[in-house]
Amino acid sequence: MQKKKKVAVVGATGIAGQQFLTALYQHPWFEVVRLAGSPRSAGKKYEDALRAPNGQIAWWQPEPIPNHYRTMMVEPSLDLNLNDVDIVFTAIDSDAARELEPRYAAQKPVISAASAFRMENDVPLLIPGVNTNHAQIINYQKQKRGWQGFIVPIPNCTTYGLVCSLAPLQKAFGVKTVIMTSMQATSGAGRNGGVLALDMLDNLVPYIPKEEEKVEVETQKILGGLQGNSFQYAPISVSCTCTRVPVTDGHTEAVFVGLEKPATIAEALTAFREYRPDYGDLPSAPKNFFTVHEDPFHPQPRIDRDQDGGMSTHIGRVRVDKTLNGLKYVMLSHNTKAGAAKGALLVAENLCVQGYI
Amino acid sequence: MQKKKKVAVVGATGIAGQQFLTALYQHPWFEVVRLAGSPRSAGKKYEDALRAPNGQIAWWQPEPIPNHYRTMMVEPSLDLNLNDVDIVFTAIDSDAARELEPRYAAQKPVISAASAFRMENDVPLLIPGVNTNHAQIINYQKQKRGWQGFIVPIPNCTTYGLVCSLAPLQKAFGVKTVIMTSMQATSGAGRNGGVLALDMLDNLVPYIPKEEEKVEVETQKILGGLQGNSFQYAPISVSCTCTRVPVTDGHTEAVFVGLEKPATIAEALTAFREYRPDYGDLPSAPKNFFTVHEDPFHPQPRIDRDQDGGMSTHIGRVRVDKTLNGLKYVMLSHNTKAGAAKGALLVAENLCVQGYI
Amino acid sequence: MQKKKKVAVVGATGIAGQQFLTALYQHPWFEVVRLAGSPRSAGKKYEDALRAPNGQIAWWQPEPIPNHYRTMMVEPSLDLNLNDVDIVFTAIDSDAARELEPRYAAQKPVISAASAFRMENDVPLLIPGVNTNHAQIINYQKQKRGWQGFIVPIPNCTTYGLVCSLAPLQKAFGVKTVIMTSMQATSGAGRNGGVLALDMLDNLVPYIPKEEEKVEVETQKILGGLQGNSFQYAPISVSCTCTRVPVTDGHTEAVFVGLEKPATIAEALTAFREYRPDYGDLPSAPKNFFTVHEDPFHPQPRIDRDQDGGMSTHIGRVRVDKTLNGLKYVMLSHNTKAGAAKGALLVAENLCVQGYI
Amino acid sequence: MQKKKKVAVVGATGIAGQQFLTALYQHPWFEVVRLAGSPRSAGKKYEDALRAPNGQIAWWQPEPIPNHYRTMMVEPSLDLNLNDVDIVFTAIDSDAARELEPRYAAQKPVISAASAFRMENDVPLLIPGVNTNHAQIINYQKQKRGWQGFIVPIPNCTTYGLVCSLAPLQKAFGVKTVIMTSMQATSGAGRNGGVLALDMLDNLVPYIPKEEEKVEVETQKILGGLQGNSFQYAPISVSCTCTRVPVTDGHTEAVFVGLEKPATIAEALTAFREYRPDYGDLPSAPKNFFTVHEDPFHPQPRIDRDQDGGMSTHIGRVRVDKTLNGLKYVMLSHNTKAGAAKGALLVAENLCVQGYI
Repeated sequence: MQKKKKVAVVGATGIAGQQFLTALYQHPWFEVVRLAGSPRSAGKKYEDALRAPNGQIAWWQPEPIPNHYRTMMVEPSLDLNLNDVDIVFTAIDSDAARELEPRYAAQKPVISAASAFRMENDVPLLIPGVNTNHAQIINYQKQKRGWQGFIVPIPNCTTYGLVCSLAPLQKAFGVKTVIMTSMQATSGAGRNGGVLALDMLDNLVPYIPKEEEKVEVETQKILGGLQGNSFQYAPISVSCTCTRVPVTDGHTEAVFVGLEKPATIAEALTAFREYRPDYGDLPSAPKNFFTVHEDPFHPQPRIDRDQDGGMSTHIGRVRVDKTLNGLKYVMLSHNTKAGAAKGALLVAENLCVQGYI
Repeated sequence: MQKKKKVAVVGATGIAGQQFLTALYQHPWFEVVRLAGSPRSAGKKYEDALRAPNGQIAWWQPEPIPNHYRTMMVEPSLDLNLNDVDIVFTAIDSDAARELEPRYAAQKPVISAASAFRMENDVPLLIPGVNTNHAQIINYQKQKRGWQGFIVPIPNCTTYGLVCSLAPLQKAFGVKTVIMTSMQATSGAGRNGGVLALDMLDNLVPYIPKEEEKVEVETQKILGGLQGNSFQYAPISVSCTCTRVPVTDGHTEAVFVGLEKPATIAEALTAFREYRPDYGDLPSAPKNFFTVHEDPFHPQPRIDRDQDGGMSTHIGRVRVDKTLNGLKYVMLSHNTKAGAAKGALLVAENLCVQGYI
Repeated sequence: MQKKKKVAVVGATGIAGQQFLTALYQHPWFEVVRLAGSPRSAGKKYEDALRAPNGQIAWWQPEPIPNHYRTMMVEPSLDLNLNDVDIVFTAIDSDAARELEPRYAAQKPVISAASAFRMENDVPLLIPGVNTNHAQIINYQKQKRGWQGFIVPIPNCTTYGLVCSLAPLQKAFGVKTVIMTSMQATSGAGRNGGVLALDMLDNLVPYIPKEEEKVEVETQKILGGLQGNSFQYAPISVSCTCTRVPVTDGHTEAVFVGLEKPATIAEALTAFREYRPDYGDLPSAPKNFFTVHEDPFHPQPRIDRDQDGGMSTHIGRVRVDKTLNGLKYVMLSHNTKAGAAKGALLVAENLCVQGYI
Repeated sequence: MQKKKKVAVVGATGIAGQQFLTALYQHPWFEVVRLAGSPRSAGKKYEDALRAPNGQIAWWQPEPIPNHYRTMMVEPSLDLNLNDVDIVFTAIDSDAARELEPRYAAQKPVISAASAFRMENDVPLLIPGVNTNHAQIINYQKQKRGWQGFIVPIPNCTTYGLVCSLAPLQKAFGVKTVIMTSMQATSGAGRNGGVLALDMLDNLVPYIPKEEEKVEVETQKILGGLQGNSFQYAPISVSCTCTRVPVTDGHTEAVFVGLEKPATIAEALTAFREYRPDYGDLPSAPKNFFTVHEDPFHPQPRIDRDQDGGMSTHIGRVRVDKTLNGLKYVMLSHNTKAGAAKGALLVAENLCVQGYI
């Protein structure tokens, strides 16, 4: 990588956009050259665009705003100049994505955190190290849609951790059924229309609209095969209850898995520990794809989520499950790092190495 | 009930004992005449026994200490005079229960919140309205052990809500398998050796020692039958992951149930709504055995737990589960009311009506 | 009181309006006959008006919606029929209050939770038991404005508790200066534009816009005198820092008071304990105007706020302060009960007794 | 610094000791060569000494245990070999400190996090950059006590941030009075005897035993002068209310200061911004001694505490205070970093540069 790729971040003032900017700051391969936002933000310096009506500077990352971004002008999302851009990262809601992403993809590669195109039949839902090979459908997508670029979305943040944890089990033992209860962090709800403090003090909410459906079908797509230009969804029966708990970051999931071939605890631990992702050496990759905990009191979100830059998938409490004839365990992954912006960067890095960008 | 039954509360200074005292205050059938505690408390006025070394009055109920109790003398648990007592309520740990409860039971009925005797084969694990008839084994217990009294424990607080929610499903459709993930309140851990704030701020802990095993086997005992003097454990495969979350009171459980006979959502709702406990009119009974929520954002612990005096079992998010060929739902019950002291009072009230006390 | 007064609640669907409805349910003197809301709610049954776009029933009280209200029609605030109404309670924001309350007051007494008219020089800012006599200015207000009714606002919820706690000190020792730091509950921010969970998990926010100014000036008005038709603001120098902490209900305030006449701890405790409000026997009044805590670990919001129906002002940690030559203490009051709807009911009850309603 | 100084950490298994080990890991000047603990831990490998009876590995830092420490043997505190040691860091309670620290100080320099010797009249209470010159009394201490080493304690974590924030005000305007309310993190209470989750969910506790007295007197000592071998306590009247709030790390303090010379907001901001500590370039020093926030919603503990390695003192909401004829502001500092282990390292580094170590 002689020269850095130039990237645009769309939805740059929102919380997800800020996560992209933080993750991209001093990135060894990528360099942010354009920021885009809604009409409310467009035409302002980035720092000014963050200023809320009450005077608060709406920057929600623990690190201060990198000076590099403060004075960049925010361009209108609807009229974004992509000529000098190599990659577009989008951090926008699904409706906006449905309108904007095809415009960008007509010219350039788009890596998207939105759900709009995840289930399209020519669009890969990529997790490097899990279904790296699904990237192959990009060529078909470009040809079919007549685009010079393409769209690759990342999965839902709850799907992300679940599928990472299932990958070695599927490979070693075959996965037939999955029953999962999530305890999801409040940061997943973003700040606009986010979860109110009153709902998250001495409380939990047992429902996240549309979340369970996403997890169930995305899991089947990612763990499925790709034959020619056609996805073969994995015949895994997935059933979820998704809840919101008073945790800032880090989705915890209690997973029960029915297996084709029975596994002992030792065999399961080995499957996790010896799993090696096939993506080589990428800047955003964790040192350990899995962190396997022996201490049954872990993983715990506040204590464990930030290890390995928030990119490791934590596995704990591995036990045999007689009810499903398989295994049960608890999984943790960082919903705004591995499951969002940094996960999207990993996808882009992997597509660079694979030659699609 | 012409005259109130006289009761003793053992472990009266602990948090569970305080819950008993609060629940027993102005009870229409029962009257507290004796308090007992450890050597540290014995011989002091109740109010003085509550005073911690740092001066704090260690009373943890939202209601102030009823004046009635303030000046009662705390007697030593090991040397408690039961002559004028009709019922003993124990709120002590399992080791103490194993030693003390048989002494008390030699003379008088003991209703216990401890786990010590739950799995003994001549001891019923009672939930009035669910397995009311298991009380029959009391006569056998008395005869076999040569006691004038007996021991009846209440189940674990996590078991309590789960079993209540399973009872109408078992009756209507037959229950084959149960997969459950609990999100348990911190009050369940008590105050001595309780959960530290550092573990419950922006965090959850995915493990509660010994909890899962209790839930699995207690569920089978309670939902099983009683043939003669022998329990027939229900052949239900139960698998759990029990977690601790930052909620003060109210255990939430995400339940997935495999049924013998398939059920629609409407049939399941009907089973819950039309379920009538067989215990008649008891002072501690909730107006509604079940509170069924249509709003998918409920039940929520802080909002819903105190309805009906904390004695109703809340059911929400009832859905069909294809993986287990059954149902899935979310359940809430109040772990320190229905699942502890007030639940124990309901047992005592029911045993009065059944004639065992 | 032979016949119940008929009341209208304006802003009935909001969280403050719901608190009014809950407090008014089965009230011995008042009966809700009309509900009013914004154009979005008007013309719907109350239950339907509460339904949010995502299907959630936006009712935020721990008690279920009283059936009485469910089927009442919500009328438009701008076109509310007051003919058969004796009292109007408003639970609306300040801008709406400025427009609507004079319309209502032209006909009927208005008790308002909004800040719009608090500082007008013909409007009393009433706390029964503290400045009961300020009600006298109502006649002047009616005459000056040519209204048949009038407007009486309640103070800001943070002012409320502070002023209650200062009243006996002012009477016994004279108050010269007040330095106060509040730790305010999140419910104070309401639900629309409320505080986000991300701000209240493992965090606090050291700023509440406009709050400090309100507390400083309202305190001077309430504790001041009324000479003829003119308020004499109390010459007390008040300085505050208002913060938001992760507590659902109950504002805690650390107060340092400079006194004209020095006071011992014993004298201060006596002043609090012997303070008797001058409002007689009102349905919403607490049994104890003050709850004085000897245990230095109290008052605590979750443990103490609900005592006496959330209407008592809690005082703890009374100490001598050498810096200001006075006293320091910690105070707690329930911001959505004493400091809001139930406090407004107490005002209305007191005005009934005083003959203004 | 050619060769690293060799250090011992006493109380190595506790939470404070772990913070020392984490802060010392890969320190450029210091190298941990000995760990000491209570009889329960002594004689075990460090990793084994951390294992709790229930199997949990009691390591509470977000970073994993550095491998370097895992296999080190824990020595008994009462019998610690200091021959090859240059500095002893102690993280023990006050009673243990009173016994152990003089033994160590007879031989070697002791930097202590305990309160035992803070108020002795030959012991400096050091904050480098605030009262760096107080180190001079070390020679007198050694001579008077006949020690080859010495004891230098760090102040209480609540004092630490307060005094840092007062230093520039005292220098520029003179400080006469201080009224402070703290909102302290739960980590300050440690894990043994720590704060229970039940006290910190939807709650705060308005009392921390002995804390207020410490802050009041330590502030006077640190901000006072040193004439010959005698401390001249600063004639500042300090009055505090210390509370515990549901925040993991980071003490927030609302400060009201009476000044000798009036200051405008601009002058105050300048005093903070232009303050330069006199300790030169130390490894643990923050880039910015103060972080001054313009945004009135800051400082916030979760968002701001970790900036600059948790070593910066955050200042926000600077306003004029008329009541005390001075200033008011909100301050934040990291109680387990700047106010504890890392603060102690800074002291040791500074004493190396000053030539006392």
